[in-house]
Amino acid sequence: VTVAELGEMGLIARVTARLRALPPPAGPGDDAAVVPAPDGRVVATTDVLVDGVHFRLAPGWSSAADVGWKAAAQNLADIAAMGAVPTALLVGLVTPPGLTVDDADGLADGLRDACASTGATVVGGDVVAGAQLVLAVTALGDLQGRAPVTRAGARPGDAVVIVGALGRSAAGLALLRAGVTTADGYAGRCLVAHRRPDPPYPAGPALADLGATAMLDISDGAVHDARRIASASGVQLRLTHLVDEADWAGLSEVATLTGSDAHNWVLAGGEEHALLATLPPSALDAARALGARHVGEVVAGDGVVRARDGSPYAVTGYDHLAPTRTDIRPAHP
Amino acid sequence: VTVAELGEMGLIARVTARLRALPPPAGPGDDAAVVPAPDGRVVATTDVLVDGVHFRLAPGWSSAADVGWKAAAQNLADIAAMGAVPTALLVGLVTPPGLTVDDADGLADGLRDACASTGATVVGGDVVAGAQLVLAVTALGDLQGRAPVTRAGARPGDAVVIVGALGRSAAGLALLRAGVTTADGYAGRCLVAHRRPDPPYPAGPALADLGATAMLDISDGAVHDARRIASASGVQLRLTHLVDEADWAGLSEVATLTGSDAHNWVLAGGEEHALLATLPPSALDAARALGARHVGEVVAGDGVVRARDGSPYAVTGYDHLAPTRTDIRPAHP
Repeated sequence: VTVAELGEMGLIARVTARLRALPPPAGPGDDAAVVPAPDGRVVATTDVLVDGVHFRLAPGWSSAADVGWKAAAQNLADIAAMGAVPTALLVGLVTPPGLTVDDADGLADGLRDACASTGATVVGGDVVAGAQLVLAVTALGDLQGRAPVTRAGARPGDAVVIVGALGRSAAGLALLRAGVTTADGYAGRCLVAHRRPDPPYPAGPALADLGATAMLDISDGAVHDARRIASASGVQLRLTHLVDEADWAGLSEVATLTGSDAHNWVLAGGEEHALLATLPPSALDAARALGARHVGEVVAGDGVVRARDGSPYAVTGYDHLAPTRTDIRPAHP
Repeated sequence: VTVAELGEMGLIARVTARLRALPPPAGPGDDAAVVPAPDGRVVATTDVLVDGVHFRLAPGWSSAADVGWKAAAQNLADIAAMGAVPTALLVGLVTPPGLTVDDADGLADGLRDACASTGATVVGGDVVAGAQLVLAVTALGDLQGRAPVTRAGARPGDAVVIVGALGRSAAGLALLRAGVTTADGYAGRCLVAHRRPDPPYPAGPALADLGATAMLDISDGAVHDARRIASASGVQLRLTHLVDEADWAGLSEVATLTGSDAHNWVLAGGEEHALLATLPPSALDAARALGARHVGEVVAGDGVVRARDGSPYAVTGYDHLAPTRTDIRPAHP
């Protein structure tokens, strides 16, 4: 059965039920939803995912539930990276008329399940027909009285920390491209990291409470995203310990298996959704208790360097409009 | 010059400048934007527009600025229909790599200009490549202490009013389909209504302040959308005066020109973005002062009828997933 056979109203009713949505005006079913914003400000972000570019809905690659999960997670991570708590998602879906109802169910389930650990729910959306499957997700969040943590506040003398793994999502993509669609052990964890990223949401507000001066979630590569903090803050980030020793054996094994470079995954892998933050060194012990790794320092200057001698990283970022320019995150497949 | 040649960062910088965006954290440039929500609640809605379905970006049809305008206006209308004031837009853009930079500029200009009368600004977004041009717009709004006006509060005895014209957008589409791309007089106004709808935003909060019991903006046809209020409220809407005499001569002339049925445009034309509201009869005079027309009454029962004898309207609504089922709003072209 396809979504066209079900019809727009039938599909919306079915999906809304699976989302366990609240009744209007808090949830879908009216012109707009009404979402609590107790702080008096609302944090808002939009990310768009296109089939064949940001995911591949196909047997062995990603299930519809994986796709829904991923679309939610990467937006929720943006909310956390501001130091806020996610409150709501709105989902714009462009669907080919031939999408199966099973896949529509899966998208809804994935969106719902990715929200489950955060307290956010899907409060609204729109469904239209188009040639290519597209999910356009907007996430809203509440700062709970905190100052938002932007990319612009890093100061010389700050420590640089990362909460979450680097390279696993890129390793998972490499496995899929090599035809490895199921695996045990570390390789299996990489496949999960790629299909269902699990950003450390609570660490965002927690790092803000510890005095984080700048923060973002790593979606286009650690070095590339670090450059964004360096540029916005007018400082240099010296990242000397991006590789997590606890991950290295596993990443190296997957790299050998797939003929890849594990180091490049760590430096340049997109869609990792780890949080990269700068904060006063006095907060390092408390940050470590949240799972943060100390990966470098903020110094006067500009850009991102890999060593005390100032040698730059060679990796570049991913350009969504001209992918052939870059050396990272190839389009799927 | 195409957007692919400009690149993702180049395009974002260019578009952000045209939007006259605020610096982060209030506007684009960080993981998320921070938008004031003084009411302590935020009203949020998402609509997705697909090239060839909701608009046609082509010479003589719609310019890129028209498309940007329309995408903003239909979301802002949803905010007004809740009784709220628009505060912000987020825009997800899926663009074919070959889109010209001129057209990207036009999209930004249209989004900006449609917001200008409302006080909202574009605060965030995302740009990705895809096969088909898609705009996924999220609008946010503030209730300023008002109770949200849902579709569920209409009561027998209420009057039904409409603010804004009916049928003009449908007439404009009929003109375009007949090859009439420019016109003077009333036909020209219909082309503008279709390309650049101008919903009566201030009437939304104003009708809420007058005690409106239910409200929505007419996006899928007056009768079809009235059925939504009837269904959500558990009442019948008797709509005896949907035709605005002041528009009838003009609509009839365009109908003759295009071989169409003006009556069907009024009853079933989508994308009109007039506001349909129910309110106590005691508020009718004040509503008329806002430009409202009194078009019918709420009575006990169900559905929407066209006369005192209870005869139903025959028109149906538009199904975005199975357009061939319906008799309204044909897909473009």
